[in-house]
Amino acid sequence: MGYTELDQKCINTIRILAVDATFKANSGHPGAPMGMAPVSHVLFNKFMKFNPKNPSWVNRDRFVLSNGHGCMLQYALLHLFGYALSIDDLKNFRQVDSITPGHPEAHDTPGIEVTTGPLGQGFSNAVGLAIAQAHTAAVFNKPGFELINNYTYTFFGDGCAMEGIASEAASMAGHLQLGNLIAIYDDNHISIDGDTKCAFTEDVLKRFEAYGWHTEWVKDGDNDLEAIEKAIKKCQEVKDKPSVIKLTTTIGFGSKLAGTGGVHGNPLKEDDCKGVKSKFGFDPEKSFDVPQEVYDAYGKTASNGAAAEIEWNQLFEKYGKEHKDLYNDLKRRLTGQLPEGWQSKLPTYKATDKAVASRKLSESVLQAIFDAVPELISGSADLTGSNNTRWKEAVDFQPPSTGIGEYSGRYMRYGVREHAMAAAMNGMAAYGTIIPAGGTFLNFVSYAAGAVRLSALSHHRVIYVATHDSIGLGEDGPTHQPIETLAHFRALPNCMVWRPADGNETSAAYYVALTSKSTPSILALTRQNLPQLEGSTLENGIKGGYVALEAKDAQVTIVSTGSEVSISLEAVKVLKEKHNIVGRVVSMPCVEVFDAQDKDYRLSVIPDGIPTMSFEVMSTLGWEKYSHEQFGLNRFGASGPYKEVYAKFHFTPEGVAERAAKTVEFYKDVKPLRSPLNRAFLNLI
Amino acid sequence: MGYTELDQKCINTIRILAVDATFKANSGHPGAPMGMAPVSHVLFNKFMKFNPKNPSWVNRDRFVLSNGHGCMLQYALLHLFGYALSIDDLKNFRQVDSITPGHPEAHDTPGIEVTTGPLGQGFSNAVGLAIAQAHTAAVFNKPGFELINNYTYTFFGDGCAMEGIASEAASMAGHLQLGNLIAIYDDNHISIDGDTKCAFTEDVLKRFEAYGWHTEWVKDGDNDLEAIEKAIKKCQEVKDKPSVIKLTTTIGFGSKLAGTGGVHGNPLKEDDCKGVKSKFGFDPEKSFDVPQEVYDAYGKTASNGAAAEIEWNQLFEKYGKEHKDLYNDLKRRLTGQLPEGWQSKLPTYKATDKAVASRKLSESVLQAIFDAVPELISGSADLTGSNNTRWKEAVDFQPPSTGIGEYSGRYMRYGVREHAMAAAMNGMAAYGTIIPAGGTFLNFVSYAAGAVRLSALSHHRVIYVATHDSIGLGEDGPTHQPIETLAHFRALPNCMVWRPADGNETSAAYYVALTSKSTPSILALTRQNLPQLEGSTLENGIKGGYVALEAKDAQVTIVSTGSEVSISLEAVKVLKEKHNIVGRVVSMPCVEVFDAQDKDYRLSVIPDGIPTMSFEVMSTLGWEKYSHEQFGLNRFGASGPYKEVYAKFHFTPEGVAERAAKTVEFYKDVKPLRSPLNRAFLNLI
Repeated sequence: MGYTELDQKCINTIRILAVDATFKANSGHPGAPMGMAPVSHVLFNKFMKFNPKNPSWVNRDRFVLSNGHGCMLQYALLHLFGYALSIDDLKNFRQVDSITPGHPEAHDTPGIEVTTGPLGQGFSNAVGLAIAQAHTAAVFNKPGFELINNYTYTFFGDGCAMEGIASEAASMAGHLQLGNLIAIYDDNHISIDGDTKCAFTEDVLKRFEAYGWHTEWVKDGDNDLEAIEKAIKKCQEVKDKPSVIKLTTTIGFGSKLAGTGGVHGNPLKEDDCKGVKSKFGFDPEKSFDVPQEVYDAYGKTASNGAAAEIEWNQLFEKYGKEHKDLYNDLKRRLTGQLPEGWQSKLPTYKATDKAVASRKLSESVLQAIFDAVPELISGSADLTGSNNTRWKEAVDFQPPSTGIGEYSGRYMRYGVREHAMAAAMNGMAAYGTIIPAGGTFLNFVSYAAGAVRLSALSHHRVIYVATHDSIGLGEDGPTHQPIETLAHFRALPNCMVWRPADGNETSAAYYVALTSKSTPSILALTRQNLPQLEGSTLENGIKGGYVALEAKDAQVTIVSTGSEVSISLEAVKVLKEKHNIVGRVVSMPCVEVFDAQDKDYRLSVIPDGIPTMSFEVMSTLGWEKYSHEQFGLNRFGASGPYKEVYAKFHFTPEGVAERAAKTVEFYKDVKPLRSPLNRAFLNLI
Repeated sequence: MGYTELDQKCINTIRILAVDATFKANSGHPGAPMGMAPVSHVLFNKFMKFNPKNPSWVNRDRFVLSNGHGCMLQYALLHLFGYALSIDDLKNFRQVDSITPGHPEAHDTPGIEVTTGPLGQGFSNAVGLAIAQAHTAAVFNKPGFELINNYTYTFFGDGCAMEGIASEAASMAGHLQLGNLIAIYDDNHISIDGDTKCAFTEDVLKRFEAYGWHTEWVKDGDNDLEAIEKAIKKCQEVKDKPSVIKLTTTIGFGSKLAGTGGVHGNPLKEDDCKGVKSKFGFDPEKSFDVPQEVYDAYGKTASNGAAAEIEWNQLFEKYGKEHKDLYNDLKRRLTGQLPEGWQSKLPTYKATDKAVASRKLSESVLQAIFDAVPELISGSADLTGSNNTRWKEAVDFQPPSTGIGEYSGRYMRYGVREHAMAAAMNGMAAYGTIIPAGGTFLNFVSYAAGAVRLSALSHHRVIYVATHDSIGLGEDGPTHQPIETLAHFRALPNCMVWRPADGNETSAAYYVALTSKSTPSILALTRQNLPQLEGSTLENGIKGGYVALEAKDAQVTIVSTGSEVSISLEAVKVLKEKHNIVGRVVSMPCVEVFDAQDKDYRLSVIPDGIPTMSFEVMSTLGWEKYSHEQFGLNRFGASGPYKEVYAKFHFTPEGVAERAAKTVEFYKDVKPLRSPLNRAFLNLI
């Protein structure tokens, strides 16, 4: 309360930096920053707890700009508060190799918590951040030591409000009673197609009430700073519900085009830029001109934040004396390193062990390691019994008042909300104290594609437990049988796609997934049982690809994954008996990890001189990279018992052998016959 | 009203058929059919208008089982009413090549309107069906001729209610005031993880009210047939809103496990099957035993439906006399054939014509053909100005009361709801009188992946106008720049992915998309300008791939798409000048269409004897199928002016030429050097 002219100057400085940067870039979105500068000013100065000099302080308040196209708002704030983002960085807005890209990217820019821009993602990340806060607090806070009590704030616009992912996440957050989550809805009535009346006329606050949220409405978000402050304060006081504030604003406030779509995604014209500056009492001839008193005011807030962190650090050290193990555990978690020796818990198997579905093998891994890896939080999008994601001792992450779990619980019931699950996991991973693993059918990871993409782009260590990974799921039929899914995610940069063939490979997949700090993993797992393979070891598996069956004077290599490796091993016998051809078999549980091995090793697996045929019961697209010929399924599958479905498509030892023989025949005249791993040039990475 | 024992017998017959079929298949979901048999009985006998002998009668009421796992409910109904689905088909439930697959598939089974099972899709298809009904009525109904007045009914469960796609669709339907849409929510409190209290505690009806729906609640959906009838009647009377009925039911009603998750996705045990039959007065030793009086009762409803169609046909013939053109137009639309001569409107270009972005070329196509193809309905997920999907004369599809459009309007404002847009388009296409085209950025087609998959699986003629198709979008940066997207959809069966290089190819893409009655298309279009190419013609384009630049004694083929074709043509000059190598260029706007050409033609495009290098500025995955070497981007892009982004990754004539030269060098010792189109064997399709 007691806002002065200086506050207004601060607000207008934010607006003008957004105007200048988008004008200079001749690209970007000035409208949202101009409309949301007032609430940002109030929130960052009156409420938020952060230290610009240490953007990774664990108990900082999190801020997520879900309407990420308005990122000049956030870049301006980061600059003014003294994060490592200079005025030159603002001048380089939307330029190649700047730290101020067109939408905020978490791993590039100090102070950006999560990558936003694809609408609805940031809001859902914020739910994940709030889940992580609630969990971390429940695990680490002790009487007298409220170590973890940060808020998560998120701004979102009409676009995010329309996206289904945000609806899922909002419903989830309401159920979970996340009291430390405060969302601010920029109710500016404008989306790209113009007035929201053309497509979006629902009652947003009523919808959030239906989800179980506390709601507030600030009717003059452009000017009424007191009302904004009061509303945020009220939301902070509501402890058993997440809160949303509908903030009615004018997009592009100050511009000649204020309140119209014209100011949403286009820089202001030069005269309009000047007009805005004049109107706000700034020199219309100057650009990127920040009044010193604004720096001073924001610097003071930053200092308070730094002091708060010092105080927190003192508390934490004191905590260390009374709760040594928890202290050490939290310190360790924040480094991203797993506990010493955890990997010794990973199950290993002998070839004589019984056949088990890899979804069950995955469960065995989780059961074996959950105690050793306390930061692992599992869960499922309502397929717990099918995904086998829950260890026996698991407690559900639930509001204590429900009586069916605790916030310290490590098992998430995401509901049938794959997209929000994935985005929440991104937020949870971003928090810094959690490694999330979440299950659904592989086919429905596609529902979450938008968020999986951001797991990869943002370098989040997230594990997708993707069961029912092929036509091998049988009776559920083509609607549920992945064909294109592995090709899709193999084409996604910085994403590991695992399809283990047995128990050792499943353990290997988890080993690499858990130790890769900046890469998400998709674990494609079977519904049907798989035999334990002779050549499989943990050490082999973690190379991504290895020789499962070597043969002297081999004439063909069959490279295969998951449930198809054991069929390939049988096929080699048929190949010899029926076609008098010697074959060898490669198991390739993860092409991305295989690609990272040195070339000598890779060529020892897929060698020169003999042809290679791939075998995987889904789209062959991409297997040309590792093989001369490809056997797979470039059509939709069929509903029926899985062995009959396999037989229908000739996915039998005989069917594989027949095609391997044709492969040998076809390539016998080619000299030299190079391994497909040999390339004329390498692409930039 | 006035329900008798016979009604109860009908209901129990449905339940028992679901029990028998899932038991025999040892697979499937008996719970939902047992819980929803009462409402099905009331709906199909008292309200629905359909003729089982002609499942394609245009004015039939549409029924969509969004909780498609409960498909034995629908299969039982189809059988009992006399659709071409025999008792043997029920006995073949979930068997290979049956017409009763694990989830309902539209193109395989008579009476199934849309493919369901992936949760939320059916509900959203129903919104599309209702949109199509409203539009078709607005276009064709005339005073005295209410030709089109069918209702769309959909059942959905908690799973669908949780999915974001359904939230998007529900918000859209509320905005659009679709009075002929009636949704019935199976409020059984059970999802796969058990009681919905573990994840789903929102107030569903309040949420639908917030969207602008009329709501009803039937508290005893197991027994109170009168209340069910009354609620549906009430919903029919509400003309300016879609309606939802919350129907509280007991999952697996009649089973020992009624009301539990145990009956959701597993067949009943044998003793339970027998117990259910005894309880309902059926012979516990018999299976698939339908009482004759049930057949008779349902046969009577079917006869009424057949009579209604005859009456409608008479009305339609009379209509034909008064409204000949409309009559002919509707008849034609129902055949799926486009109007005679429409293709003459497609724009064509000369190489001297100016450079234009392919998103603008797409707009020119729409502008040129909209009048000739009245069934074409365009739209965008709130990116109209960026997708260029709107012709100048377009009227918005809006409720007339809004004053901003009409139901006869042919432009959809889908809002920022990509997934629901795609699913609604599937429903619109399924209605039979519409060809929908909808726009978003290519990167955000991924948000709709679940529905795009069903466009393909269900054979819907749907067009995705996917602009901003690469790093060429520039400043918006990596969050918006597709890398994996084309590989993803190229791996999807029965989906055409087009990436036209210029105006003639854009027209070709529309030609093939519009004339392919059972295949969806994704049109990947640039933000940046593209020159008109010398070798490009409509005739070349519709082959999917062709020689854009031939050369005598060529030493290398560069195969390329979209914005990269003109760079490849420049690269060939550099290749000659700098490396003294002769290159030829292939433009490949659509690999799926190219694959369908005869082998001689394909080999004339990508010939034996010289190496081929592909060039596309995104994931190279899959290009190995058409080329020996691949130049592309297997990492995320960058934010900046697009020419600088291209230069950063060496995507320049010089960069391409350098790699083409390396390709020539690398393959010079290989004999014979076969075209990659030569294969040792073909996969089944």
